[in-house]
Amino acid sequence: MFVVIFRATIRELDSEYSAMAARMRALALTQCGCLEFHALMEGREEIALSYWPDEESILAWRQHPEHVEAQRLGRSRWYESYRGEVAKIARDYHQSF
Amino acid sequence: MFVVIFRATIRELDSEYSAMAARMRALALTQCGCLEFHALMEGREEIALSYWPDEESILAWRQHPEHVEAQRLGRSRWYESYRGEVAKIARDYHQSF
Repeated sequence: MFVVIFRATIRELDSEYSAMAARMRALALTQCGCLEFHALMEGREEIALSYWPDEESILAWRQHPEHVEAQRLGRSRWYESYRGEVAKIARDYHQSF
Repeated sequence: MFVVIFRATIRELDSEYSAMAARMRALALTQCGCLEFHALMEGREEIALSYWPDEESILAWRQHPEHVEAQRLGRSRWYESYRGEVAKIARDYHQSF
């Protein structure tokens, strides 16, 4: 399994950014094979984690026309900076109390 | 390079949790070879990302006595649930505007 780690600093948050982010989350999960999607925002900082079964799914997600347009909008309008990594899960652990 | 992805739901946030988290961040960066440490909190949800040069550093971090004690405290006092993954970075991208 793979994870895409996306970290961004947003110039100015608005409701359109939230709506776009929600659409992209739904798109990933319903059309591109994304297994899980978790995002947190604190102030102007965002971390989004998406989990994928393979690299092909990540490529499909990156190239999906709606996502390409969202990336373009993000760069021109919302992001002060962003950084992403693709990583392969080596092992995991979890606990509920 | 490796990343440890830690996601937790906190029962109740207090100043002691914040102080412990700050100590653990400093410990990782100054004594265990952690390269970068980024954490966000939204409501009771936390994501912490720490980046490491190799698996040995991650093991040293996991076994550091202060961290072992913090993990014990976390389980008994603060965490409703948590989940972690160790992943190997395959590639990255970044952009500043």
